[in-house]
Amino acid sequence: MENLNIASYDLLYNLFSFTFAAMMAATLFFWLNLRTVSGVYRSAIVVTGLVTFIAAYHYFQMFLSFENAFIVNNKELTVTGRPFNHAYRYVDWLLTVPLLLVELILVMNLSQKQTINKGTTLGIAAVLMIILGYPGEMSSDLSDRFFWWSLAMIPFLYIVFVLFIGLKDSILNQPVEVRGQIKVACWVTIISWSFYPVVYLLPNFGLTGGDAYVGLQVGYSIADIVSKAGFGVLIYIIAYKKSKVEGYSIS
Amino acid sequence: MENLNIASYDLLYNLFSFTFAAMMAATLFFWLNLRTVSGVYRSAIVVTGLVTFIAAYHYFQMFLSFENAFIVNNKELTVTGRPFNHAYRYVDWLLTVPLLLVELILVMNLSQKQTINKGTTLGIAAVLMIILGYPGEMSSDLSDRFFWWSLAMIPFLYIVFVLFIGLKDSILNQPVEVRGQIKVACWVTIISWSFYPVVYLLPNFGLTGGDAYVGLQVGYSIADIVSKAGFGVLIYIIAYKKSKVEGYSIS
Repeated sequence: MENLNIASYDLLYNLFSFTFAAMMAATLFFWLNLRTVSGVYRSAIVVTGLVTFIAAYHYFQMFLSFENAFIVNNKELTVTGRPFNHAYRYVDWLLTVPLLLVELILVMNLSQKQTINKGTTLGIAAVLMIILGYPGEMSSDLSDRFFWWSLAMIPFLYIVFVLFIGLKDSILNQPVEVRGQIKVACWVTIISWSFYPVVYLLPNFGLTGGDAYVGLQVGYSIADIVSKAGFGVLIYIIAYKKSKVEGYSIS
Repeated sequence: MENLNIASYDLLYNLFSFTFAAMMAATLFFWLNLRTVSGVYRSAIVVTGLVTFIAAYHYFQMFLSFENAFIVNNKELTVTGRPFNHAYRYVDWLLTVPLLLVELILVMNLSQKQTINKGTTLGIAAVLMIILGYPGEMSSDLSDRFFWWSLAMIPFLYIVFVLFIGLKDSILNQPVEVRGQIKVACWVTIISWSFYPVVYLLPNFGLTGGDAYVGLQVGYSIADIVSKAGFGVLIYIIAYKKSKVEGYSIS
């Protein structure tokens, strides 16, 4: 982090602020639109907003932490010695990634048993994935990084498997009008999530020093916006369409 | 607290932030879902959200107080001399613990007389328990600590007794669909509450210096998340199911 130049500093400073604004705006969009979907889908939209709200909080903390780590004086950048808290991302994911899976399950409106069943197994896999990724992220040793990455990929692949194979029957039970969208939601989950393990390995791909650092932060932030706010909009559209198909009309 | 190393500092720093985020997310979940339960149970869910909201506020204050107590400079940790305010937890419990019991009583929808009766006696016992625990927590003398712990255990055991014996008849009057869940809620109360007296005695079990301090903070935070947010989700599920059984449907 000490190798940042002033251009990279400006980029990251604005990136944290931008991502906070995007997440907070998404949160308000979901919650202000709660009553445009029928009662059955409101908890899915509540959870969708929780995910972006928790992310907004953590991006705001990252912004403050980043600001406190540097002094800028006439375009000269010096470090203050106060650390930038890298853990915020992981703390955020620990809360938001299980909730992301819950929001997908809730919008499918499965039986209560299936909802609890899938919610629990996917949630546990998500928490495991994040806990296994953390030690590698904090290590400066590249083979350590790769080792923990490999371990975290096991629950990751399990989640992908469940979303594609395990939910296949449930998708066929969805109204025909939204079946396409739910498939898209599963794909968006997998594509946007695949971003994370790739970004994680950037240092292993030969990116070093300030470049690796900027690459990580930009990559993770884009992935967060797509998988939380973008994915959330998709969930909202599904809930909205299903409400309409099932005869709900907002007065 | 002066004996903390940088790893423990990072752990506690992120613990306070994480617990704040979890409590705030839980609060919003309860309040945004208010209309998914029938009018009878809304006050229970309002109180459930109050508990996590008050906790969120205190965790944010603890986060700030902790941050102000230390200076981090290039991974060197020094104390500023500004104290970390240990009293926040007790101030929080003084408000939230009686409310936790009230939320359990409200969701049972007892007669007005019983609600006021049980609410008052359990509430007074809870306040007494916390007031008696405080002097021991602030004392550095281990026998003092044990003495106040023993006194606080009297109202604690009284509460456990009421939850198991005194509410037995009321539980049998609950709809059969939620009787199991209410029993689980009583058990979650007792198990998660039992965590507190155990954590309290960690220094008496031989944990000293920085370790005792980290143990206390981590232990209390986990117990708070389970007994406030986790328990609250259980109360919400009970209220939701009872609403359905009693013919409420959200449009």
